[in-house]
Amino acid sequence: MLLLHLSDVDEASWGTRLAEALAPYPVVRRGDAYDPADIRYIFVWKPKPEAFDGLSNLKAVLSLGAGVDALLRHPNLPDAPIVRFVDDDLSQRMSDYVVAHVTMHHRLYTRFRADQKAKRWSQLYPPAAGQTTVGIMGMGVLGQDAAKRLLPLGFTLRSWSRTPKQMDGIEGFSGDAGFEPFLSGTDILVNLLPLTPDTAGILNYQTFGKLRRGVLDGGPVIVNAARGGHQSEADIARALGDGTLGAASLDVFQVEPLPQDSPLWAIENCYVTPHIAAISSERTGVVYFSSIIKNHEAGKPLINVVDRARGY
Amino acid sequence: MLLLHLSDVDEASWGTRLAEALAPYPVVRRGDAYDPADIRYIFVWKPKPEAFDGLSNLKAVLSLGAGVDALLRHPNLPDAPIVRFVDDDLSQRMSDYVVAHVTMHHRLYTRFRADQKAKRWSQLYPPAAGQTTVGIMGMGVLGQDAAKRLLPLGFTLRSWSRTPKQMDGIEGFSGDAGFEPFLSGTDILVNLLPLTPDTAGILNYQTFGKLRRGVLDGGPVIVNAARGGHQSEADIARALGDGTLGAASLDVFQVEPLPQDSPLWAIENCYVTPHIAAISSERTGVVYFSSIIKNHEAGKPLINVVDRARGY
Repeated sequence: MLLLHLSDVDEASWGTRLAEALAPYPVVRRGDAYDPADIRYIFVWKPKPEAFDGLSNLKAVLSLGAGVDALLRHPNLPDAPIVRFVDDDLSQRMSDYVVAHVTMHHRLYTRFRADQKAKRWSQLYPPAAGQTTVGIMGMGVLGQDAAKRLLPLGFTLRSWSRTPKQMDGIEGFSGDAGFEPFLSGTDILVNLLPLTPDTAGILNYQTFGKLRRGVLDGGPVIVNAARGGHQSEADIARALGDGTLGAASLDVFQVEPLPQDSPLWAIENCYVTPHIAAISSERTGVVYFSSIIKNHEAGKPLINVVDRARGY
Repeated sequence: MLLLHLSDVDEASWGTRLAEALAPYPVVRRGDAYDPADIRYIFVWKPKPEAFDGLSNLKAVLSLGAGVDALLRHPNLPDAPIVRFVDDDLSQRMSDYVVAHVTMHHRLYTRFRADQKAKRWSQLYPPAAGQTTVGIMGMGVLGQDAAKRLLPLGFTLRSWSRTPKQMDGIEGFSGDAGFEPFLSGTDILVNLLPLTPDTAGILNYQTFGKLRRGVLDGGPVIVNAARGGHQSEADIARALGDGTLGAASLDVFQVEPLPQDSPLWAIENCYVTPHIAAISSERTGVVYFSSIIKNHEAGKPLINVVDRARGY
């Protein structure tokens, strides 16, 4: 039996579609009558503290999110394997966001918009894409997809990851020792890391100060599409104000929704979007999770299982 | 002998570099002492009315611009073949501009910026790239390069050109009969046409009204990186005001610099840049034009010769 426990999304709709896809396998929601001992799979998004109570025969926790940082902090998380959502559609949308913001900053959007407001015709030619280095932090599914989209645009690409990763046409850096060399040649820093104790707060003033200056008029740029926990918003505000950063595109925040009193709203060279870079799609999610369950019930191993020690 | 006649660019620098590249072939500028009958090639940008006077032995006119619409209107243009600049670097930069503005509008930049100004956290998920159709007008060197960059991003692409053009992965439309069917499925219209009597004013209110509605929140979008003569700015202002267009990115204008009293400067969903999408690069230009002259002097045919009847 599959139990749904989804907050802040349309749980009823997911339930209907999953029941259709899995029939005759039983699917229940929290309000339904069922014996907790019958639950073999629980499908969660933002689970409440009591979410896992009594689930004594759980085979797997299925996570609607691609990032499992919040789930791993759940005080009563059971020992069952956690399967995270890996979704081509989500990767595409995340890359859509990344490419839009990288290219906008490469083309000096902030500068030309200020000129337009002042009715100022002031020609300045942005560097060619190849003269501009985009540094991608995190080379998992999302980082690799973003790299795959940015390469044909002609950008010079480099990556930084926990362990060394090879990808054609991309200069790879890794680990603590590789971080400063990575930053020192990066004009536009894109964060697609998982949020772990090691990566929390990595987007801070010290990091920004190590980025390359001189290629992009106005200064280096950051794009954060991963987690608010990666960034110090006080440091971002300071760096945008004093020119350490030329611009920042942020889709995620330390507290969401972004509080009304956050200074970020009003900073001209800070581009705020309300955590809409990518969403887990119901259409692809139903296909993905129903096949996870069917395959596992048929004796096949689970895929995309989270490594709890690693944190993703 | 090569004569330089370049306005509004650094003619002295071009002269020095071309003389180096062509040595011992003689290179002169307007102020130098030379016999006009000795001039076999003239290299022009915005030539004055008297530019071609006395050049009785001219073998070719070399145009620094990729577009020759202004040159073809020169009242004293001689009958010699016109060679236009075809430059990978220029194509790359033009595509940089096109991709940046297409992706920015695809990701509903105007809407999220307005939300930010109002400190409004309002989630809306842009369509995936594949659900969004970019229609490219003009499938010459620049149109094909833009298509080549947009395809790997996942957009659905279609093109419109004077004569039928085939390109893998792109639905081709052509001629008068193909124009409305092309527009009716286009969410983001990119203009990279040459400016000719047939294409002048093609970006008008009637055209905008035929674009597809319903995919992009706010309405369809135009991106003009070709020539100001393609557009009616009065029609653009009207269409942006009444919602016929959701946004417009314009790098070129009917009069440049854009006059101070133009309404476009102050329209929030109009994105003005000062004709900086792409520039003819001196580095690549010297290589290109010196090889044109060397090859022609060695008896080889000219390349990239303008068809005057066609207008490009």
